[in-house]
This record gives sequence, C-alpha cells and structure tokens, in this order.
Amino acid sequence: MLGHRSIGFAVVASCAFATAAWALDVAEIGSFHVGGRQVALDGMPAKELVFSAGAPAIKVDPNGQFEVEQMYAQYVKLTNPKARYPLLLVHGGGLTGVTFETKPDGKPGWQSFFLNAGHDVYVSDAVERGRASWARYPEIFKTEPVFRAKREAWELFRIGPSDSYAKRATFEGQQFPIEAFDQFAKQGVPRWVSNDAPTIAAYEAYFRKVCPCVVLVHSQGGNLVLTAGLRVPELIKAFVLVEASGAPDPEKADLAGFKGVPHLFVWGDYRTEVQPWPRLTAILAKYRDGVRAAGGSTDWIELPEAGIKGNTHMMMMDRNSDQVAGVIQDWIGKRGLMR
Amino acid sequence: MLGHRSIGFAVVASCAFATAAWALDVAEIGSFHVGGRQVALDGMPAKELVFSAGAPAIKVDPNGQFEVEQMYAQYVKLTNPKARYPLLLVHGGGLTGVTFETKPDGKPGWQSFFLNAGHDVYVSDAVERGRASWARYPEIFKTEPVFRAKREAWELFRIGPSDSYAKRATFEGQQFPIEAFDQFAKQGVPRWVSNDAPTIAAYEAYFRKVCPCVVLVHSQGGNLVLTAGLRVPELIKAFVLVEASGAPDPEKADLAGFKGVPHLFVWGDYRTEVQPWPRLTAILAKYRDGVRAAGGSTDWIELPEAGIKGNTHMMMMDRNSDQVAGVIQDWIGKRGLMR
Repeated sequence: MLGHRSIGFAVVASCAFATAAWALDVAEIGSFHVGGRQVALDGMPAKELVFSAGAPAIKVDPNGQFEVEQMYAQYVKLTNPKARYPLLLVHGGGLTGVTFETKPDGKPGWQSFFLNAGHDVYVSDAVERGRASWARYPEIFKTEPVFRAKREAWELFRIGPSDSYAKRATFEGQQFPIEAFDQFAKQGVPRWVSNDAPTIAAYEAYFRKVCPCVVLVHSQGGNLVLTAGLRVPELIKAFVLVEASGAPDPEKADLAGFKGVPHLFVWGDYRTEVQPWPRLTAILAKYRDGVRAAGGSTDWIELPEAGIKGNTHMMMMDRNSDQVAGVIQDWIGKRGLMR
Repeated sequence: MLGHRSIGFAVVASCAFATAAWALDVAEIGSFHVGGRQVALDGMPAKELVFSAGAPAIKVDPNGQFEVEQMYAQYVKLTNPKARYPLLLVHGGGLTGVTFETKPDGKPGWQSFFLNAGHDVYVSDAVERGRASWARYPEIFKTEPVFRAKREAWELFRIGPSDSYAKRATFEGQQFPIEAFDQFAKQGVPRWVSNDAPTIAAYEAYFRKVCPCVVLVHSQGGNLVLTAGLRVPELIKAFVLVEASGAPDPEKADLAGFKGVPHLFVWGDYRTEVQPWPRLTAILAKYRDGVRAAGGSTDWIELPEAGIKGNTHMMMMDRNSDQVAGVIQDWIGKRGLMR
C-alpha cells in the first residue's frame, strides 16, 4: 500500500558487507546509568520474609529512599573509529539492548556489525527494562507490568501470520531463524504502559550525556527517542528508524528542529498481512511527511522492493541481518557521517 | 575475631597493578541467555490496558507460554588471553553484572581490570535480575519482590555504621566514593527470596556452557555458585569468594568434589562493627574448614591485616578497587592459572 511512496534509494554495496569479522582495537568498554530521580516511600507496613530456606523470617521494612526511572547504557569505543559520531542502538518494547547483541542463533548481531564497520557503539536498556531496573508498583510505577506471551511475539513480529504460533507455521521465505525462537523468547522482559514520560526524560538525559550521535532505534523505541530528540535536536546527527511503531504527530508536534536531521525509515516484509502494521506504517508515513514539510531529509526503504525479502520485525536477528545492516551502513556513509 | 584464623598470605605485587589502561585486542564480544524453561499459563482473565495516552484500551490476554528462569551472560574474549581459563564475574544480591563494569564514580571497574590482566571475562545477570528478566508472581515466581532501600545498602555494605545513612556518615578511612553513592543506588534491582533452586540450576547450565573457568563471586552469589559448582566441580579451576554471604554447610554437603579447586576468600574492613557480618564470616570460615578437611586448598585474606584498609562490601567499586583486584590477580597467578 505504501510501496508507491518509497523514494528512490539505490541499494548499493549492501552485499559488500560480509559477516562481521572480529579482532577489534578497543579503546574502552564501559557502562553507566543516566537519568532518574529519588523517591521516598513511608508508612508502608513491614513484611516478614524468609530469605534462605529453613532460616527464621526476617522483618523487611519496605519504606525508604529509592533511585527510580534511570536507564542503562553500555559502550564499546574503538581506538580508531571510522564514524564521526557514536552510534546509539535503542531497543523496542518488551525487550532490552540484548536485541542488538549476539543473535539468538549464536551468530554476531548488529552491535558486532557496526563495531566492525567502525562505529563506537552504545547499547542501552530503557527505563524499567533489563539493567535499568524497575520500581515498586502501584506506589511508584502506576500500573501493573505486562508480560508478552511467545504467541504474541511470533505473530506481532511477523515470523508467521495470525494464528500461526501453535503450529509454528511461518511465512514462506521468512528470514528469522525459527530454531532459535525459544532462545529469542528468553530475551523478553516485562513492560509497563505508564512510563512513557520518565522513559523519554531518561533518553533526553542520555543524549545530553553522550551525543552528538547517530540514533538507530527499533519499534516502540521510535516514538520515545524521537520525542526525546525533539528536545535536543542539535545533538542528533541522524535517525535510523527500524520499523518504528510510533512517532510524534506532525499536527501536534513542531518538527522544525529536525530540519537538519536526516531520517532513514527501514521496513521489512509481510507488513500488509499482519495487524497492526498497516496502521503503524501509516503513522510513520505521516511523520515522515511532516519531517519533509519541515524541510528535513528522509529516505524510506521497503526492503522487499529493494530485493531483500523475508525480513521480520526482528530483522537484526534474521539470517540476513548483515545484509540489512549493510543497507543502513551504506546510507550512513552517504550522509557524510563516516570519516 | 576471625583474624587469627587467617593463613599467611604474602601480599606481593598487589601494588604493581596500575589503574587499568585500555587498548585491548578483542577477538569477540557477545552474550547469551542460558538455562530456564517454558511455563504455560491459562485460565487468567483478560485485562484492558491503555498502551499510549489517549489511545483506546486494548484487551491483553495474560495467558500463554513464557520462557522463565534463564540467566544472562556477556563476554569479552581477547585475541591473545594470558589466562588459561575464562574468568566469570558473578554479582551479589539485589544487583546485576553492572557491579563489575564502570564504577559509579566513572572509573574502570574489575571487568576492565581483569581484561587488562589478560583474562577472557564473562559478566552475568542472575535469574530474575537485569537482562535475565523476571516472571509473573505469584503464578510463576512464588513470592513478592523485595526492593532494597538506599539506607539498607549504605549500612549493610558498610559504608558507614548502623544508623549512619540519614547523615551519610561514614567509617573513618573508608574507601567507597560516597559522592557516587546515589549513582550506585541506580544499579539496584528487585530480588525474590524464593528463587534459589532455579538460580542454582541456571548457574550449573552456565558452567556447563562456558567452563572450565575461574569463578569470582560476590556476596549472595557465593552460596549459589558454590552449590552449583558442587554439581560440576571438574569444570571449576578456582573460586574467588569476595565477601561471600553464604556457603554450603559442610555438615550437610559433600565437599569432596572441591578437593582440587583452590579457594580464595577475600574480606574487607569494619566487619566486626556491622551485623550480620560476624555471623556470615563464621559461616564462611566453617565452609573453608570443610573444604580443607576434604583436602582442598584455601587462602583467607583479611585485607586490613594485609595493610589494605577501609574496604567496604562493595570493594570492586571502592577507590582502591585496583589494589584489591591486584591481590586477587596475584593469587590467580600463583595458582598456575596464567599462561
């Protein structure tokens, strides 16, 4: 449906990127938490808990001061990066930065690919996910967490069509390594539906700490980092939106700050066949048009039209993940973002 | 109290390790989840949740299949490691592998130190913590999570004496960078008191996957990895127990498997002044005696007696963390574990 909107983008050199080969000159590996605030709880009753089987119960006082709503990031800096700016890899909903690490089938993922391509690479865990930690609910986080069943991941991420999970049926020609699907499911983490504001605040703090940078974001992370980015557009050198599932509404948000921030939209296969992808694609197309109306530069790649077929929503884990990363790397190079 | 039990251990060369200097030849950076199982939930009622402010509520079906009780590990492999076996860094209670990464004051931590000393280094998150993820309770995990207040961390970790948190009073001469205490508190994660069995099972699966190895473990991790290690003692080349807070009881556990597994016990300062450290030290001393009775080799270092004063329970984050790591590295070298 949206294929005709694709602007011409020659997929050149995307096959020139072989499987990432290691042996890196690493200048530094490190990590940090950023953002968040202190919250104090009081007046809650003590609880008795048995910490070790057979040991007497210990009274636990749930009151006190806590750090909450921070996020976590880990970086690998190269001795001689070829990229002008660090590359931030931002995960989607119900997942963590592990999205970009070794793939569930044990092969190198996009963290590896982009390090080998010469970027200093940052991988983060959003507020409430993974090493960012999470806070007591409903006292601090306002809702209950949501746990994604394997069925939902299989179908929403377009490994197979609706109602395909029970039989583990797949789309013909799809690229996800289904023998590693259970392994992939181990990466899932609970999510809350009430933490957008602190998550966006933490992304803003993250950008202020480590940018100027290029931000590559997946799925639910899209709306969060675009919204945060609008607060500090001068710090963002480019956005790569990998199947972003949301974006600011151009009728409500002023996108003028993104005039100088090139955007690449990357989309996989089978999107017309699985809800809610047609609707989400339309939201992103509207945002894309808004960025262009504000004078910004955008490129929109439908991978199947570029001859790259079978990609799921988790294209960074698909068998041809290096080929997809090659398309992105080629675009980054053409934007003058490599030395 | 237990000082007189310390066996003679010459702290040689511990000052020869300067602050970790980077520029590493890295062969591979990767990660994986290991262990765990699939659980199916059914019969739970659907819930209505609003995923984005203003959007209509979406019905969420909490039933389905989930992967639970896996753990997470990340590794950095060197092109030319000097150590014979990988070094596994295992965190303590209410924390994640971040314990060993960049210190809260921004300086390099033990992951950095031991990479620079020539080890392939693995850093893990235990079941229920960080990137390992956690499962719905009480349906899967059987109890509620426990959140550690900052006061408890300050006092239990011996930054200051009992009731010192409100004034942020410290022990005289203590080494924790207290200006970074709030930053440290951001590393905390909830814990459960009912997950020992799956956590031990996951550590066993981890050892089977990546060992033979040397295991360096902190605090609550001690009892968990020693118990797991007794199931596969032939895979463990040495244990470094950094203020382990528990251990198998020699009256109940058969420690014969550890006859060939050298143990180093490392202890910081102020332990006689803060509960429950005298009691925990006695438990570990009993375990140490059990390993020796089984024919095993043990070394017990009270850092203050070795002239290294002021260390808290979080000695891998203390200002002199490299000095403490140097003591450990020296011991590892003397056990013939470096090439």
